Amino acid sequence: MVIETTYRVIYGDTDNMGVMYYGTYLRLFEIGRNEYMRARGLTYREVEARGIQLPVTEAVCRYLRPARYDDLVTIATAVVHARGARVRFAYQVRDEAGTVLARGHTEHGSLGPTGRPTRLPPDVIEALAPDEDPFLPER
Amino acid sequence: MVIETTYRVIYGDTDNMGVMYYGTYLRLFEIGRNEYMRARGLTYREVEARGIQLPVTEAVCRYLRPARYDDLVTIATAVVHARGARVRFAYQVRDEAGTVLARGHTEHGSLGPTGRPTRLPPDVIEALAPDEDPFLPER
Amino acid sequence: MVIETTYRVIYGDTDNMGVMYYGTYLRLFEIGRNEYMRARGLTYREVEARGIQLPVTEAVCRYLRPARYDDLVTIATAVVHARGARVRFAYQVRDEAGTVLARGHTEHGSLGPTGRPTRLPPDVIEALAPDEDPFLPER
Amino acid sequence: MVIETTYRVIYGDTDNMGVMYYGTYLRLFEIGRNEYMRARGLTYREVEARGIQLPVTEAVCRYLRPARYDDLVTIATAVVHARGARVRFAYQVRDEAGTVLARGHTEHGSLGPTGRPTRLPPDVIEALAPDEDPFLPER
Repeated sequence: MVIETTYRVIYGDTDNMGVMYYGTYLRLFEIGRNEYMRARGLTYREVEARGIQLPVTEAVCRYLRPARYDDLVTIATAVVHARGARVRFAYQVRDEAGTVLARGHTEHGSLGPTGRPTRLPPDVIEALAPDEDPFLPER
Repeated sequence: MVIETTYRVIYGDTDNMGVMYYGTYLRLFEIGRNEYMRARGLTYREVEARGIQLPVTEAVCRYLRPARYDDLVTIATAVVHARGARVRFAYQVRDEAGTVLARGHTEHGSLGPTGRPTRLPPDVIEALAPDEDPFLPER
Repeated sequence: MVIETTYRVIYGDTDNMGVMYYGTYLRLFEIGRNEYMRARGLTYREVEARGIQLPVTEAVCRYLRPARYDDLVTIATAVVHARGARVRFAYQVRDEAGTVLARGHTEHGSLGPTGRPTRLPPDVIEALAPDEDPFLPER
Repeated sequence: MVIETTYRVIYGDTDNMGVMYYGTYLRLFEIGRNEYMRARGLTYREVEARGIQLPVTEAVCRYLRPARYDDLVTIATAVVHARGARVRFAYQVRDEAGTVLARGHTEHGSLGPTGRPTRLPPDVIEALAPDEDPFLPER
């Protein structure tokens, strides 16, 4: 299960080198996982309303080619695993020609209403639809 | 009462035009008012701990000259008025030569613990030290 | 001529108060004017390719009601004037119910290839389609 | 060689969860490496003036404990390797009690004036002062 969403790069995303700032990619990853969950029928806002938070414990991004102002990039998002109290999202950012600009992942813990680690409920795992090797040829 | 603090411009603050992004100035204004209040002995964190929030109702910035990567800018901050349920901070951003790069202000309401407009307590007004024309003659 | 575009608020746009950070609105204004120009058939990237830059000389935002995480906001953009070497864009940010959350404007100078103020070419003014009172009842 | 610098967390760095946004850490890492290079007598601005760019090819951050609004965090930065056309910076972010909040690294390529990979000049490598295991035993 791979969900794609697009984003138009603005001046505020770029930097002095004329390309998208390296930190902006983590914003794109967030857009990717928000839209992934929305497409799966369970928004992150709804997960929070059930008293579950999924704070990021690790973020990794590999930068292959620059994105530039006004580029329309595609963010492809998948869930690599969702079990116990952990979820891993994987991401690819591509340009309009389909070239991969960046790829990465975020690992998340699962915290319950008291702030303690909590096993993900079965229906949340099902909605997350883990898929071990979503971007196979590109990785 | 004018309080000054410095900030070093990073790549993440700049944009494709090679200068500081126009939205970044509102971050600098926030740094300015945080440090203004700290210097006056009453941090914004302490104001919040008393159940008072000062949300921004208006922000204005006039951009005179660009700031660039690695510039060390000075943010000069003052309070123009603090009365009833309103506070206005004024700001100047200057480069190392003292040239004014930008100036502006933010107007804030005062909300109490229930989220309703609330008169500023006298000790908060005193700490804010309003000063009608702090940056004369640059304004 | 009013052009509307939508934006989904992410965690990275919000702050500690649980609402969209006041500086984020200037990013939304930039999205608004980028999409305004694209809808008018002349992107800002194309204007730059002709050697013209439109740096912001003034930004004003009035904050009426907060936007929150995952809200889908609409940015309505118009050009209030475009003459000589100046352009003014006006913006409204509304929630899904149509309530105005914020309004503001940005004033821009026009710089030519040498960095000097330059009159806007007639076809650029025509594309910008100035409209004196675009948001009439709401202002 | 470990260089430390401090940063005060602002509202604009935090998010809806009441903690510093995960993407903000990459801004802190940039502050860390800017100040590392300045302390070593060779600012990144000077490296660029010599026609060398060090774009980020990989960024990794592990989030251990949250940073909150108005926290004064310390960014400790070191260079793990600098050889050929590659540099790796390592970072730790700590709170005022010395607790590690996050750690990570960035890997950079070295590009010459024509945008091609270029070996780092010996004096740049010497200034970078690589140190294989700078944060032992926390890593």
